[in-house]
Amino acid sequence: MNGFLPVDSLDSPRFVGLPTFMRLPQAKLGDPIDAAIIGLPCDSGAPYRTGARFGPNSVRSMSVMLRPVNPYRDNLNVFEQIQVADAGDASVIPGYMEETMDRLQAGVATLVENKIIPIGIGGDHSVSLPALRAVAERHGPVALVHFDAHSDTWPGYFGGKLYSAGTPFRRAAEEEIVLPQSSIQIGMRGSLFRPDDVAQSLQLGFEVITGDQMFEIGLEETAACIARRVGKHPVYMTFDLDFVDPACAPGVQTPEAGGPSARETLSLLRSIQPINVVAADVVETNPLYDGPGQITALLAATIVHEILSLIAASRKGLD
Amino acid sequence: MNGFLPVDSLDSPRFVGLPTFMRLPQAKLGDPIDAAIIGLPCDSGAPYRTGARFGPNSVRSMSVMLRPVNPYRDNLNVFEQIQVADAGDASVIPGYMEETMDRLQAGVATLVENKIIPIGIGGDHSVSLPALRAVAERHGPVALVHFDAHSDTWPGYFGGKLYSAGTPFRRAAEEEIVLPQSSIQIGMRGSLFRPDDVAQSLQLGFEVITGDQMFEIGLEETAACIARRVGKHPVYMTFDLDFVDPACAPGVQTPEAGGPSARETLSLLRSIQPINVVAADVVETNPLYDGPGQITALLAATIVHEILSLIAASRKGLD
Amino acid sequence: MNGFLPVDSLDSPRFVGLPTFMRLPQAKLGDPIDAAIIGLPCDSGAPYRTGARFGPNSVRSMSVMLRPVNPYRDNLNVFEQIQVADAGDASVIPGYMEETMDRLQAGVATLVENKIIPIGIGGDHSVSLPALRAVAERHGPVALVHFDAHSDTWPGYFGGKLYSAGTPFRRAAEEEIVLPQSSIQIGMRGSLFRPDDVAQSLQLGFEVITGDQMFEIGLEETAACIARRVGKHPVYMTFDLDFVDPACAPGVQTPEAGGPSARETLSLLRSIQPINVVAADVVETNPLYDGPGQITALLAATIVHEILSLIAASRKGLD
Amino acid sequence: MNGFLPVDSLDSPRFVGLPTFMRLPQAKLGDPIDAAIIGLPCDSGAPYRTGARFGPNSVRSMSVMLRPVNPYRDNLNVFEQIQVADAGDASVIPGYMEETMDRLQAGVATLVENKIIPIGIGGDHSVSLPALRAVAERHGPVALVHFDAHSDTWPGYFGGKLYSAGTPFRRAAEEEIVLPQSSIQIGMRGSLFRPDDVAQSLQLGFEVITGDQMFEIGLEETAACIARRVGKHPVYMTFDLDFVDPACAPGVQTPEAGGPSARETLSLLRSIQPINVVAADVVETNPLYDGPGQITALLAATIVHEILSLIAASRKGLD
Amino acid sequence: MNGFLPVDSLDSPRFVGLPTFMRLPQAKLGDPIDAAIIGLPCDSGAPYRTGARFGPNSVRSMSVMLRPVNPYRDNLNVFEQIQVADAGDASVIPGYMEETMDRLQAGVATLVENKIIPIGIGGDHSVSLPALRAVAERHGPVALVHFDAHSDTWPGYFGGKLYSAGTPFRRAAEEEIVLPQSSIQIGMRGSLFRPDDVAQSLQLGFEVITGDQMFEIGLEETAACIARRVGKHPVYMTFDLDFVDPACAPGVQTPEAGGPSARETLSLLRSIQPINVVAADVVETNPLYDGPGQITALLAATIVHEILSLIAASRKGLD
Amino acid sequence: MNGFLPVDSLDSPRFVGLPTFMRLPQAKLGDPIDAAIIGLPCDSGAPYRTGARFGPNSVRSMSVMLRPVNPYRDNLNVFEQIQVADAGDASVIPGYMEETMDRLQAGVATLVENKIIPIGIGGDHSVSLPALRAVAERHGPVALVHFDAHSDTWPGYFGGKLYSAGTPFRRAAEEEIVLPQSSIQIGMRGSLFRPDDVAQSLQLGFEVITGDQMFEIGLEETAACIARRVGKHPVYMTFDLDFVDPACAPGVQTPEAGGPSARETLSLLRSIQPINVVAADVVETNPLYDGPGQITALLAATIVHEILSLIAASRKGLD
Repeated sequence: MNGFLPVDSLDSPRFVGLPTFMRLPQAKLGDPIDAAIIGLPCDSGAPYRTGARFGPNSVRSMSVMLRPVNPYRDNLNVFEQIQVADAGDASVIPGYMEETMDRLQAGVATLVENKIIPIGIGGDHSVSLPALRAVAERHGPVALVHFDAHSDTWPGYFGGKLYSAGTPFRRAAEEEIVLPQSSIQIGMRGSLFRPDDVAQSLQLGFEVITGDQMFEIGLEETAACIARRVGKHPVYMTFDLDFVDPACAPGVQTPEAGGPSARETLSLLRSIQPINVVAADVVETNPLYDGPGQITALLAATIVHEILSLIAASRKGLD
Repeated sequence: MNGFLPVDSLDSPRFVGLPTFMRLPQAKLGDPIDAAIIGLPCDSGAPYRTGARFGPNSVRSMSVMLRPVNPYRDNLNVFEQIQVADAGDASVIPGYMEETMDRLQAGVATLVENKIIPIGIGGDHSVSLPALRAVAERHGPVALVHFDAHSDTWPGYFGGKLYSAGTPFRRAAEEEIVLPQSSIQIGMRGSLFRPDDVAQSLQLGFEVITGDQMFEIGLEETAACIARRVGKHPVYMTFDLDFVDPACAPGVQTPEAGGPSARETLSLLRSIQPINVVAADVVETNPLYDGPGQITALLAATIVHEILSLIAASRKGLD
Repeated sequence: MNGFLPVDSLDSPRFVGLPTFMRLPQAKLGDPIDAAIIGLPCDSGAPYRTGARFGPNSVRSMSVMLRPVNPYRDNLNVFEQIQVADAGDASVIPGYMEETMDRLQAGVATLVENKIIPIGIGGDHSVSLPALRAVAERHGPVALVHFDAHSDTWPGYFGGKLYSAGTPFRRAAEEEIVLPQSSIQIGMRGSLFRPDDVAQSLQLGFEVITGDQMFEIGLEETAACIARRVGKHPVYMTFDLDFVDPACAPGVQTPEAGGPSARETLSLLRSIQPINVVAADVVETNPLYDGPGQITALLAATIVHEILSLIAASRKGLD
Repeated sequence: MNGFLPVDSLDSPRFVGLPTFMRLPQAKLGDPIDAAIIGLPCDSGAPYRTGARFGPNSVRSMSVMLRPVNPYRDNLNVFEQIQVADAGDASVIPGYMEETMDRLQAGVATLVENKIIPIGIGGDHSVSLPALRAVAERHGPVALVHFDAHSDTWPGYFGGKLYSAGTPFRRAAEEEIVLPQSSIQIGMRGSLFRPDDVAQSLQLGFEVITGDQMFEIGLEETAACIARRVGKHPVYMTFDLDFVDPACAPGVQTPEAGGPSARETLSLLRSIQPINVVAADVVETNPLYDGPGQITALLAATIVHEILSLIAASRKGLD
Repeated sequence: MNGFLPVDSLDSPRFVGLPTFMRLPQAKLGDPIDAAIIGLPCDSGAPYRTGARFGPNSVRSMSVMLRPVNPYRDNLNVFEQIQVADAGDASVIPGYMEETMDRLQAGVATLVENKIIPIGIGGDHSVSLPALRAVAERHGPVALVHFDAHSDTWPGYFGGKLYSAGTPFRRAAEEEIVLPQSSIQIGMRGSLFRPDDVAQSLQLGFEVITGDQMFEIGLEETAACIARRVGKHPVYMTFDLDFVDPACAPGVQTPEAGGPSARETLSLLRSIQPINVVAADVVETNPLYDGPGQITALLAATIVHEILSLIAASRKGLD
Repeated sequence: MNGFLPVDSLDSPRFVGLPTFMRLPQAKLGDPIDAAIIGLPCDSGAPYRTGARFGPNSVRSMSVMLRPVNPYRDNLNVFEQIQVADAGDASVIPGYMEETMDRLQAGVATLVENKIIPIGIGGDHSVSLPALRAVAERHGPVALVHFDAHSDTWPGYFGGKLYSAGTPFRRAAEEEIVLPQSSIQIGMRGSLFRPDDVAQSLQLGFEVITGDQMFEIGLEETAACIARRVGKHPVYMTFDLDFVDPACAPGVQTPEAGGPSARETLSLLRSIQPINVVAADVVETNPLYDGPGQITALLAATIVHEILSLIAASRKGLD
């Protein structure tokens, strides 16, 4: 059981060695693991800023700050509850979205087929679609829990192109690999292309809690809404760092002024009661815009840790 | 009517072309426009950090993130309501404040004389004075709505020099181009030069809501105070980015720790009910201190968008 | 009495001259001063990011933004109430923690022996131990008021080494130079090494208010708890910048996502009623990770100013 | 004739106004111009670092440093000899290389069809292919003068994909839009994928002068080789900034240590005798990696200026 | 004699203490010193990039790297030969060039009147004029040795304004405080405003060695030309960092691609035989554009050291 | 035998996966490898700038740019000639130099004992001493080939401390683990602490070629001197990045203005004829000062590649 523990930073300084996620072991074929980190280093889907291809390794770099025990989940030691490893990166073909989608799907599928929960680190938000495809192969359509400043349900971009960071969840709905009636989007804010932008997601069947609504009903109630919405369905959780205010997450593709703080964000995630997360991703970390402190990467790593904690807590509760 | 729309970022990627504000058309003499963006690239008035001369183009660069519809103003499409263009920059003479004041005034006057609402992008805060002079030529003295961490009403700087980022509103009061009794300053905070610093503005006749008072009475009530104070007078709205906490606006001349967040700031602006804004500026964005994410420039652009929205909403209400 | 005033930034621009803290006079032996700034430029104790050796001068650089009067303490002019000077830096020996501890202690002792309140600017958090040793030589064991995201009470690091930024307050407790029963730690948050991490400080006798607890009871009550805990004891106040959220303090050694904002932090400090501060430090500012805006250094300087204000206000009250 | 002059920086400061290339007029349909700057903001072809989509505007920004007269070409005032304007950007579709190639070709074609010499600013090096296609439509196959650290003649990338920054000149040779027997590549250096990498270009028929050979024969002789090779053929000149040492051009996609300095590079370009340049590009400037001084963008702008000077000097000689 | 030595970096680490130049003592009135460093923190004269007001302290910061002995001048220990101290900064009034000129002149005059050789650290190049005025008060007109990419002899800027970084040496010639027939400008390069730009300096009487000419005749011969030109006249040496290629000096106001390297630059300075330097300045260091390595500031500090070495060597030779 | 090849960047993009050096396989105990990369992440020995603890991973990151074939060594494919893997990092104890020396020595010893040539990546220059100790255990005293701007042979630092980046080669001479009479130092330049600084190394028995001497005799002859000096002895080659000019290597601890360019540096290394290198290190890369282009890390990686190429070429010659 102790083969899959992070390196102890009280013994070996954080900067020593190759930075896998939290300095966890690298996954090898056949390892008895429950969940794996997998980098999805695609930025070909970015309509604005590129550079998210360097996101996975930037998140790994800052993840060395994390420690295994989560005081917000009853002092649970995540890695004693579930076995986690770092599975490296899926591959991509820069400039070729369709082939990139295929390569990313194949990478995630290898994990899913081995009953390993994939925790993707993006990459731009287009990566969620191939990941969802891989997950749906095994689990069927899943409930989506989507944190983002934007709904990412536009029909197409730049002459109707299907694949982009702005379209994955319309594609997923069309392909029936998500369950809109059990899915929820949280945090939309900022100026819109057209007056009916907000309506797009509703028409697809998703529940939407905008940023303003989230603060009106409160973070606790928002967390409760999430759990109610997904029920017992298998859940795919996707977190776009631009959900958070640019002060706390400057290193993103399409920053949107006026979002929740890191503290509010983590508080929301920590309030979500056990649900059945079968896959997740944390996307749009872009180290080129993150500043020397790399606070976006740190926050992304912390969010990955919270998702792992939620999975571990849910697993514990289910036993 | 459709000649003055921003380029659609769903069709042409945001990074394509010269970044005018929101990729709006460039104003030409005689264009039937209601409001125009005008850069005021002066940093000769900066007592501390220079570099705001590059502010207008940095704000334009990040403004490509914005979209035309404002969901906080009833899904109003700003650019269907009012015709807006980018008028380029007024000119300056570095190192010569008085001549710079004249050049800036002339630039703004060209707009005002053509009944175009000038929306200045600074530049340091000294630019508000020549803009006010140009505005008062046409509208007479105006009500000032001033968001800032500092009151900028010092008598003089460095041996009594009159023109500086720290003095414009005392000058404006002395020149009787503002109406102190209908004017209001919001957000002052931080350490002071002398115990009577706060009293300076009060003695000039301005109403002052300090940063602490703003949080005590609440953002909604602060917005209501603003509307009550200015009444039906023509309003000049000036927004210094250091009003906001340095976490959300690091790229400024004289940052002051402990201000409101971007979310609180936008919430305040979005709560202001229709008033008669005849001119505005958003100043002190300095890209050299903004970090790679350029979040100050994004916030400044968003604030310009909110001011345009307020103007459009007020115009709609007045029709 | 007027020999120890900061240079007036209304007369001489902030960027002129060598940046001592607030451009205060440099302390000379025998000067009749009450408190002195002293740099503690050590980063040999940093388990993660180095660079805090450049912290003291970065804080001095940004301190030129500050003005002498504190409106949050009855418009007190700090420097009319107490005489403050900049005493330069204590020395260190990079790579040799024990000798570094001795050199730092000697530097602080020179002040304490002359009845001057030392206000240390770090440097990593290991510097608090030698400062406490110097202070205890004169005052006996002191009450500790400790703001931090981490408790810094681990037994040892990297094979049991005693001196590190993660261990000073366990050492201080063991050496009986602090009074745990009158001491308090505020702000602990984030993931933990072991489930009993939180218990470590409690077992040593410290009171602990975690970050979550602080927000539950409120900032005013937290401030009241501090004053109650320390009573009339001489107080050593230590502030680690990672107490604050990385958005507001990116330039630190071990950032922890999800902390209080700069506004909340300053509000807490400004709410502390007069106590008997005999020494203080503000540590872990690291300009290499701070970004061009240097907002961490500005916040650190502002916190030093607030501590000086608390001392001045307390002194006034005691007269 | 004087409608197409840069704004005079002795009259209007360089930072005033929207930065077109050298603050030249923006081209309008039907303008009687000889050459036009056109941005080619594609980075979908980048196998390593993305961000060159922001290259055209970064080069424009720094081009304000340039002045019209070239002392290395007999004090020629470039803009009195030829009429030059800024034609804005061709468009792209991020993530879709083939459609992007088409859009870029269409953009360049608009110029070529109007007998305007296109001077492209990249963008990654994949943009040369669509530009060459547009040029060949009018001029037939052209002689290529190619400055680069890499030969960019690989057969395919990442599973045989045809379009990439590493393949344009093999494609061009295959499509017979260049004349290999009149073409020359200069500056190749650094480690290789396979021992026959160098041979690839030779097999296609290009002449190659490696970086080492260039210094052996001298810059003057290298310039002479270029003129001899291309003869009277219409010339397409393409300059990849990674030709230059990373010290002088850090802001590129695939930096290669050990190249010529900026001085050597400009000296080489200034030594080229009049040839018949019908199109050119300067590619791979990436502002995200360029540092605050933006020296790569400045060098790129200077190289554009030298190419314009060569065209003007050749035109003058041909009259 | 030993009161004016730099702090020994073998004893006290370079980062300890306030960074005066080379950690030399701060000058006090009446100190028996031969030369003094004086900051001239003006950037109001900058037609392009501002920020040089922070230049003096950035050069001081990096000067801690320097050691007292110069192996290129017979292992001379500079500070045993001449007594040098740091005199702090002259003051300025941002935005008011004429008053700034007066303040700077007064600051330099205080040194000159006390027979102290002033070594100015800029600041933009406009600062040389007031320094020359102060020097000429005591020494009469002086021979100018001017290293720069630009001749800085334009008649006026922006509507004929007299004072700017582009005009000081025309002013100096007009005011007859320099001796053009004994003066020399070295290093001019890059594009020009008008064909007769080069002729301007010649018409004023200066000798000019352009960048190209310098490499043609060689660095040794260039150094010999300088010594021949100035003869026994008192010399004012002024060094603009943009003389050097932007790769070696990115942190300047108006970078010009294609200059000499740092090694060539230092080699030139080290080849100058003893001359009678009575004043000098090293200007245009701008830390905001210098990158984290601050290599421009380091080079500027090294050049100051070389100038001090030349003075010391000349003094030794004269004794 | 083909298990130890770098990942092919024509197949898998460079940014995919964890960046081991050149994406070589990670070494496992018992692997039949000839040479291994080993990180030596120590910066406790740095008298000036810290941060080199992040050096090994920054060099690995940029090493993905490299390709296996070396055209400067007869198109040798390095990895077909010798088996190379990445052995991860040796460990350290920040702040405890002596224990750090022991941990580093143990890390290197593991390789040496298994007859694997260690190629260390620093870390500050103090790491060469423990590496030399480990190497001497197996090979006896070795010939040192030392590229650096500084001789690093000071007796002690800061009160006589023995271990520091400024002392390793005096220690090595004293411990008789180097053979001074077969050792050589190349590149010393810049100002000195004392007139006899240069003499220190000579007195220890080393040959010294200063930077100036290197250019006088030429790079080819310098390379020949190296080979002559070391003869058939086992060689330890150590390369401090500050050997190179700060323009090409800004990211170092103690930059020294005026060194050779990257091209000259690589040319020198490529000219060294086969010698018996049994160990090597490339030290002092500090990513915190390297700028976004990370050109120092790229150069360091290229130098490692050249050293591997020299080893491979020598091995080939010896067969």
